[in-house]
Amino acid sequence: MPVGTLASVKGVPQDVLEELGVQILLGNTYHLYLRPGVETVRKMGGLHGFMAWDRAVLTDSGGFQVFSLNELRKVTEEGVTFRSHLDGSSHFFSPESAMAAQIGLGADIIMAFDECTEYPASRERARESMELTLRWAERSKKYFEAHKHEVPWKSGQPSAISRQELQIPPPRLRSGLASRLGENARDDNHREGTKHCPLVADHRQLLFGIVQGGMDRELRRESVLRTVEIGFPGYAIGGLSVGEPRELTREIVESTLEHLPADKPRYLMGVGTPEEIAEYALMGIDMMDCVLPTRAARHGLLFTSQGKVSIKQAQHAQDESALDPACGCRVCGRYSRAYLRHLYASNELLAQVLNTVHNLSFYLDTMRGVRERIRTGAPA
Amino acid sequence: MPVGTLASVKGVPQDVLEELGVQILLGNTYHLYLRPGVETVRKMGGLHGFMAWDRAVLTDSGGFQVFSLNELRKVTEEGVTFRSHLDGSSHFFSPESAMAAQIGLGADIIMAFDECTEYPASRERARESMELTLRWAERSKKYFEAHKHEVPWKSGQPSAISRQELQIPPPRLRSGLASRLGENARDDNHREGTKHCPLVADHRQLLFGIVQGGMDRELRRESVLRTVEIGFPGYAIGGLSVGEPRELTREIVESTLEHLPADKPRYLMGVGTPEEIAEYALMGIDMMDCVLPTRAARHGLLFTSQGKVSIKQAQHAQDESALDPACGCRVCGRYSRAYLRHLYASNELLAQVLNTVHNLSFYLDTMRGVRERIRTGAPA
Repeated sequence: MPVGTLASVKGVPQDVLEELGVQILLGNTYHLYLRPGVETVRKMGGLHGFMAWDRAVLTDSGGFQVFSLNELRKVTEEGVTFRSHLDGSSHFFSPESAMAAQIGLGADIIMAFDECTEYPASRERARESMELTLRWAERSKKYFEAHKHEVPWKSGQPSAISRQELQIPPPRLRSGLASRLGENARDDNHREGTKHCPLVADHRQLLFGIVQGGMDRELRRESVLRTVEIGFPGYAIGGLSVGEPRELTREIVESTLEHLPADKPRYLMGVGTPEEIAEYALMGIDMMDCVLPTRAARHGLLFTSQGKVSIKQAQHAQDESALDPACGCRVCGRYSRAYLRHLYASNELLAQVLNTVHNLSFYLDTMRGVRERIRTGAPA
Repeated sequence: MPVGTLASVKGVPQDVLEELGVQILLGNTYHLYLRPGVETVRKMGGLHGFMAWDRAVLTDSGGFQVFSLNELRKVTEEGVTFRSHLDGSSHFFSPESAMAAQIGLGADIIMAFDECTEYPASRERARESMELTLRWAERSKKYFEAHKHEVPWKSGQPSAISRQELQIPPPRLRSGLASRLGENARDDNHREGTKHCPLVADHRQLLFGIVQGGMDRELRRESVLRTVEIGFPGYAIGGLSVGEPRELTREIVESTLEHLPADKPRYLMGVGTPEEIAEYALMGIDMMDCVLPTRAARHGLLFTSQGKVSIKQAQHAQDESALDPACGCRVCGRYSRAYLRHLYASNELLAQVLNTVHNLSFYLDTMRGVRERIRTGAPA
């Protein structure tokens, strides 16, 4: 999932995202709550109407940004008091208000309000934090069940996911959701040429739970079991990529996956490099989001089939070759490294646009390759 | 002509410019000379190769930027010593070096090196400045004639203009160039559906002269006659839009046009608003360039069929309507004012991209309307 923090993937128009084959975008509740505000988005028909995007959207709960952008936050049982990074104004998120915000934003998939445990944390602190996240998960679900009908979609309009045709839907995600949906799943999987993914047949949002537990395998196992007991249509692994070594991330992902139900989507939050997302997908992760492709692009760091390229380097100044001759994106098909280097070195807006388009293309190609490998059973 | 200062129309990929129907772009020699440098562009096959743009390009001579961006410039008979606005380094432009730079950049149309007379200026100062521009015009032409074969286009490759198909070529420009080209003009004007504009049939650059003379009608007349005596395939009116009242601009344009040969393209530099460019075109101007549509877009000022819109205003925050319902561009076709306002207020990159696409579309539509009026003889 490319990250569209403020209802925009920075620098890339929605039609280009469609051409790239983006199936689902992530929006950040914390940022959207501050600008333009939930009420504005709700009145415009939710994120789909507001940003003119009829494919799927997922919003995070706001918890991660509250924890990562606010040093002065105050956590109580009730929720989190925090200050806006924009103007210092004081705000409060609880499981209930975070659900209300996400229902108003109207994404297809929304996330339970959790506490992202910091790294490093003692076992005691990790347990306390996990217990809080579990209590908040219950409250999130309770509020969601009571208010999910308040979603701003127009009456009778199917959710973006239910209308979306995926050329190669991730098998795990498809089978998981098909079994979950049971008799609700419409049998329109066999239109000519494409497969239809009936993720949501009844026009509702989906609320996913989030597993925490720090870097402790036993706590992670407990977090999974108790979150599954609450019951969600999908589960995220949170609290990783927070500064820990990569081997530890992998180890925790692997051990957490052992306990997560295989018939529900499994979403690893906030990863990763192209190599990592391929690896995690082959381990069994169905969904991921990361700012890396878009943020790195804006800093001139480009991912290619030959490895990373820092386009600002003088060695590219007169290089007529494509950024990545193996890449089929419109940037690699048209422009030279020399031109991309010039745009970046001259601080031209187009540098950020083209670099982002390429990096997203590379990431989406990476995932298309992973799906193909899963589909054909080819070795990793 | 949209302005692509550094070989890029800020924020807009070349394929979008093509879709918008852009026929010719302007590049700034001063800026390109500093970054990425003429030698780099030359090695990449000139601006066409460097920026992957096979439609027409025009470069200015560098004179205007040297005068407008450099308070410490020193003008002598030989040329102008100036300091880079980037790093303060010292540089020198003469008619010869400005021609060498423009030949290296390889645009289809290049401009003589002139002195842009400041406003206000005494009659004596305006005459001195005009005389200098005339001597520099002779030197520009002399250098150009001796070196025009050094253009970086690949052997046998026609210039962008000669290959360009214009749906509705400006009649004055077309007839002017057709008569100028005489027997060189290929008779391929009648391909199905489109008209071909054989501006340059022999693969060469065109060097245009520039008329100066301050705000004095008599000096302007003299400047025209003596510039035409030197002889160029097209003529620009320079030294306007430098701070004088708009009525004075119009008056000088009108009186200068009386003397310019009607069978050569007449290019008014650095104008204007949508109303102004339509007015000047109907007065007989064939070509114009201006940063206004692109620069205003980046500041949230948008041109519409209902007048100017400042998209940052709170009144648009929940406005679901299109920016300009009468506009057929991809921005007005997809996004609401509320979304455009949010992008701008949140300082999102996409604001600059979408705003620029719309403003360019509006300008190009304006000129398409003008051409249609000229073609059909409809009243202004």
